[in-house]
Amino acid sequence: MSFPSVDEQLTVLRRGVEEIVPEEHLAEKLERSRERDTPLTVKLGCDPSRPDLHLGHTVVLRKLRQFQDLGHRAILIVGDFTGMIGDPSGRSKTRPTLTLEETRENGRTYYEQATKVLDPDKTEILYNSEWLDAMRFSDVIELSAHTTVAQMLEREDFKTRYNAGQPISIHEFLYPLAQSMDSVHIQSDVELGGTDQRFNLLLARELQKAHGQDAQVCMMLPLLEGTDGSRKMSKSLDNAIGITESPEDMYGKVMSIPDALIYRYAELVTDIPTADLPKVKQYAESNPRDAKAQLAHTIVSMYHGDEAAEAARQHFQQTVVRGGVPADMPEHRPDADPGEEVGLLNLMRNAGLTESNSQGRRMIKQGAVSIDGETVEDTGLYVDVSAEAPFVLRVGKRRFARIVWNGQS
Amino acid sequence: MSFPSVDEQLTVLRRGVEEIVPEEHLAEKLERSRERDTPLTVKLGCDPSRPDLHLGHTVVLRKLRQFQDLGHRAILIVGDFTGMIGDPSGRSKTRPTLTLEETRENGRTYYEQATKVLDPDKTEILYNSEWLDAMRFSDVIELSAHTTVAQMLEREDFKTRYNAGQPISIHEFLYPLAQSMDSVHIQSDVELGGTDQRFNLLLARELQKAHGQDAQVCMMLPLLEGTDGSRKMSKSLDNAIGITESPEDMYGKVMSIPDALIYRYAELVTDIPTADLPKVKQYAESNPRDAKAQLAHTIVSMYHGDEAAEAARQHFQQTVVRGGVPADMPEHRPDADPGEEVGLLNLMRNAGLTESNSQGRRMIKQGAVSIDGETVEDTGLYVDVSAEAPFVLRVGKRRFARIVWNGQS
Repeated sequence: MSFPSVDEQLTVLRRGVEEIVPEEHLAEKLERSRERDTPLTVKLGCDPSRPDLHLGHTVVLRKLRQFQDLGHRAILIVGDFTGMIGDPSGRSKTRPTLTLEETRENGRTYYEQATKVLDPDKTEILYNSEWLDAMRFSDVIELSAHTTVAQMLEREDFKTRYNAGQPISIHEFLYPLAQSMDSVHIQSDVELGGTDQRFNLLLARELQKAHGQDAQVCMMLPLLEGTDGSRKMSKSLDNAIGITESPEDMYGKVMSIPDALIYRYAELVTDIPTADLPKVKQYAESNPRDAKAQLAHTIVSMYHGDEAAEAARQHFQQTVVRGGVPADMPEHRPDADPGEEVGLLNLMRNAGLTESNSQGRRMIKQGAVSIDGETVEDTGLYVDVSAEAPFVLRVGKRRFARIVWNGQS
Repeated sequence: MSFPSVDEQLTVLRRGVEEIVPEEHLAEKLERSRERDTPLTVKLGCDPSRPDLHLGHTVVLRKLRQFQDLGHRAILIVGDFTGMIGDPSGRSKTRPTLTLEETRENGRTYYEQATKVLDPDKTEILYNSEWLDAMRFSDVIELSAHTTVAQMLEREDFKTRYNAGQPISIHEFLYPLAQSMDSVHIQSDVELGGTDQRFNLLLARELQKAHGQDAQVCMMLPLLEGTDGSRKMSKSLDNAIGITESPEDMYGKVMSIPDALIYRYAELVTDIPTADLPKVKQYAESNPRDAKAQLAHTIVSMYHGDEAAEAARQHFQQTVVRGGVPADMPEHRPDADPGEEVGLLNLMRNAGLTESNSQGRRMIKQGAVSIDGETVEDTGLYVDVSAEAPFVLRVGKRRFARIVWNGQS
């Protein structure tokens, strides 16, 4: 095996990265790897309690894939140990939250999904209960002797809780140490993680040194914002784009991100060549709507192929319009002949969007009614349904109906 | 077996105790013990790294003995687990500081000495490595989940160190939890300890409750001051009276404590009946010298018998005098006939206490010369050695000689 030059590798590996600690150590490790013709061991820890992967997860997975493509060794560590134990400080938690079988099953699901991004032939998967569960009390004391309380309380979330007088249970200090033990066990050269994992990743360096190992390089990747454009992508925040979602849903959700995120998504979750990113940036600024459509197409292609992406695009054009409307909404089929014009006030009422024509008139006057995103100003508007449908009729912020002509399927 | 009434027991058990938490719970436990005719299990943890017991240790040991005498069950727990591990945060401490054999050996020594106070037939000894060493990482997590970081940092020594920016290693948080686990293991009803153990003793209550047990009553005993009268008795502070010391040393050391401690020693480390303690107090105030001699006699008798105590008293009278003089000092035997009077200035010079007679004269004028504690005022004093010896001649603060007549052995 021969590795690309260190500079070539660094160019690939630095893309989109928030921080590398220590920066110079990565080059040294890559240099040594070339000299010895030995791949680096790159670690990524994964949480088996949430096996549904979304684009946010792919930021680190894609980085791991880049290491694989450069010839390095990827190890996914399923954190089943803590998953098995759960949080014993909870009330009725004398039993583990997850059984060994459940964590294994979740681990398999995680692996299946992760290998949509990773090269399955070059991916090892390990369960950390294998070594952590074998540790005894004296080993834990040895493990925890290398870290101080003050260091732990420097971790952002601990610091915040401690200063706010919220309880931090002692066992919570042991979890980061357990994760660090994983690095010692596999003797990782590099560990990947989100910026929120910075503390844990750096802690592992200390533990490796205490075990006489060459400490890992910590590579922190940004946390991808979700479709709301502000908060970290997360299933529980309902702003996530799952990588197993249907092409249509995926396409629609990418189309719903704010324009300001187009470039960030292109950089972090697509394989658009780094050299082409400046063009994407320009395009996103000059023509965000089409740039976003291109991004959506690219992302759907990555997970479902070109054909499905094209179909999703068409579906989106037909059914979803500008203005952040939901992908699924009630359909209303007015009883109208070809060429017949239907009064909008009646149409809204019949579609269940208003209670009465007077309410409809009021809404139009308030500028709260739109057709395919264009605000209606005329309270006496008539619509030729056979010609205009399908279209989305919107009243207020939350009421939508997709108007379909009976002659359409 | 039948137990004395709860009130009778409480009278004995409350003697000299600093704090009982919770106070009312002890009476309930004693009541239940009587009802069920079942002894209480009383725990005392001991540190196997320092097996030389002194009177300070006997304060809790004597309390444990009182429980035994009332019919309860005493368990000595040798903390060999932490002793075996030592402090892994130290530099060259990859190996345990003590081997299993060493901790066992120290445990045996501890037991041998402790049974000078305890009833050996009613004393069980357990080594906590038996259960702690079998605990696995998941057990430790479970164990540590019941305590918060803030609680730990309330412990006085941790708080002081944390606020002073001194490092506290995470494993130091695990040691108090390990000790608490001992209480869970033996299901102790009562735990005894010095006031400095308050935090650890109370922590065990929480852990027992979390394990569904009736929590132990914590009984805190005062820390006995050493012979210097101010600091806690401790071998390393050189103010300790060891219980295996010779009768003479023990007697001399008790005689060296400040008068203010006579009553405290009588209350905490002797078996003088509680009813007689007020008399001791009065005596200590009216005639501290004789009260202290009686205390010394009592204490030496407890460890060496009456005869040895009487011999120690005589030895003390012959060799040691008032005024805080050292027990061992150079002896000087002036060349004097029976009835011959020797000049004090010459005597001091010949005994090596002064360089010259003029220096001796100066010292007498400064009031810095004494015989058996009585300041000499006359620079022309002559002494009949055959009649006055043995006596202690003192010059300045630090120079002493024991003057013995040649005719004496």
